[in-house]
Amino acid sequence: MIQRLAVVGVGLLGGSVAKAARATGLAREIVGVGRDAARLAPALADGTLDRATTDLAAGVAGADLVVLAAPVATAERLLPAVWAAVGAETLVTDVGSTKAGIVRAARALARERAVAFVGSHPMAGSERSGYEAARADLFRDATVVVTPTEGSDGGAVKAVIAFWERLGAGRVVTLDPEAHDRAVAAISHLPHLVACALVEAVARLDPGAFGLAARGFRDTTRIAAGDPAVWEEIFLANREALDAATAAFRQALAELTAAIERGDGEALRARLAAIRARREALA
Amino acid sequence: MIQRLAVVGVGLLGGSVAKAARATGLAREIVGVGRDAARLAPALADGTLDRATTDLAAGVAGADLVVLAAPVATAERLLPAVWAAVGAETLVTDVGSTKAGIVRAARALARERAVAFVGSHPMAGSERSGYEAARADLFRDATVVVTPTEGSDGGAVKAVIAFWERLGAGRVVTLDPEAHDRAVAAISHLPHLVACALVEAVARLDPGAFGLAARGFRDTTRIAAGDPAVWEEIFLANREALDAATAAFRQALAELTAAIERGDGEALRARLAAIRARREALA
Repeated sequence: MIQRLAVVGVGLLGGSVAKAARATGLAREIVGVGRDAARLAPALADGTLDRATTDLAAGVAGADLVVLAAPVATAERLLPAVWAAVGAETLVTDVGSTKAGIVRAARALARERAVAFVGSHPMAGSERSGYEAARADLFRDATVVVTPTEGSDGGAVKAVIAFWERLGAGRVVTLDPEAHDRAVAAISHLPHLVACALVEAVARLDPGAFGLAARGFRDTTRIAAGDPAVWEEIFLANREALDAATAAFRQALAELTAAIERGDGEALRARLAAIRARREALA
Repeated sequence: MIQRLAVVGVGLLGGSVAKAARATGLAREIVGVGRDAARLAPALADGTLDRATTDLAAGVAGADLVVLAAPVATAERLLPAVWAAVGAETLVTDVGSTKAGIVRAARALARERAVAFVGSHPMAGSERSGYEAARADLFRDATVVVTPTEGSDGGAVKAVIAFWERLGAGRVVTLDPEAHDRAVAAISHLPHLVACALVEAVARLDPGAFGLAARGFRDTTRIAAGDPAVWEEIFLANREALDAATAAFRQALAELTAAIERGDGEALRARLAAIRARREALA
């Protein structure tokens, strides 16, 4: 049982953390911190938050657990102020889609003063954004990656894992922060970038073609409606791994295109069959 | 009311045409034609077909309406035999994802002997394939493109439009075959190719990352599980328009990547916001 949970950034993810903690009775008091009081009001009004503040230090002070749920670069920027405001009893985690940067920042801060930080990345989201898209069951059956390092306190790591399990996660895996960033560059950031480029390409080629969009196009590009501010920060934070992923994607696309251009039906079909088998293994 | 409907190729699309015609009572007799009697058996057993044959000429003879539902190149290859077997009273259509080739083939055949052909492309499908994936409601609310040319018989065009409306289509639009092929290259074939390249890229980069796949990756790549034989023929049949679409996509991706590489958050966010607005306009 958490006596006080502070959620910094009460949007899709932070709002869902607060709602899930409320629904499961996991925290006695839930405090929401945001830049804009008006945007915190709905979460206060519906009983998800007990208290809302635009004062970061006041919001996180005295919390057992702080969950940073601002966009990745913003969370990293806020970390020193959180560090300064919390006590030695506080455990800090986040929900960011990239982990190397914030883990590095936390380790640098920890050299000055010991505060337990363990990075998290729940692999759950939505193309919708803001508190109005938050759901108590967002993390149900989701995979959550937790990224401890050799310096992490074992008890803190266990507590963060238990936290996500209590919020409904189907599976919590631990990964090294850099390995995490490379993996999500491939499985999440690259698909997002590609979906965006697809929408842009159709807009340039033939906007009238949007009128023929069926479920295939809608599913393939659904994530392109994601929050631009969130994705700008993710792309920039993970640019190195994303670059490598994009290069591999370009190469795969070039090879498929080459088989089409030389009319090599046999090679094309063999490749498509291998891809289908890979994709079906996921389902 | 159709006295006899012949469906050539009783897989996902042909099977769905037959099931929908059966469900709506649109045809008195439904004949299925396929290469393999064993694969026609389930549609006969469940009452979707009244008759099944591997003899194309026998299957289409005497039909009021023939629906070609083989993969695009196969359908084009079968067209002369269909032409030779049907009477002057028969109307022929298809369900292929590319239209210029089959319409050209039909026009060439029509110069020898007048048979009414009007191309169709129901914008409905599934990553699943074969008769077991066929559904009577596959075309419900779907957009169907019909591609008459200046030589098309007005009554035949109306009959094909009415056919799709009776099968549940939400909207039937007419397009010039070449304009259709360019539009679907952008809205359907390019997304399919890109989804395939995405799966391939992740497999090369980090197969372990598949274990972190959430709804975003699953939706983005769902269509990559499509039937390789069907998609090989589509890609090859529409390679020219697909090449142009792929070039536009590569350019859009390169511009997004360039903004990320130079760390231009403002430009990146503006582009992502425009893309989000485009995508949301679809929903």
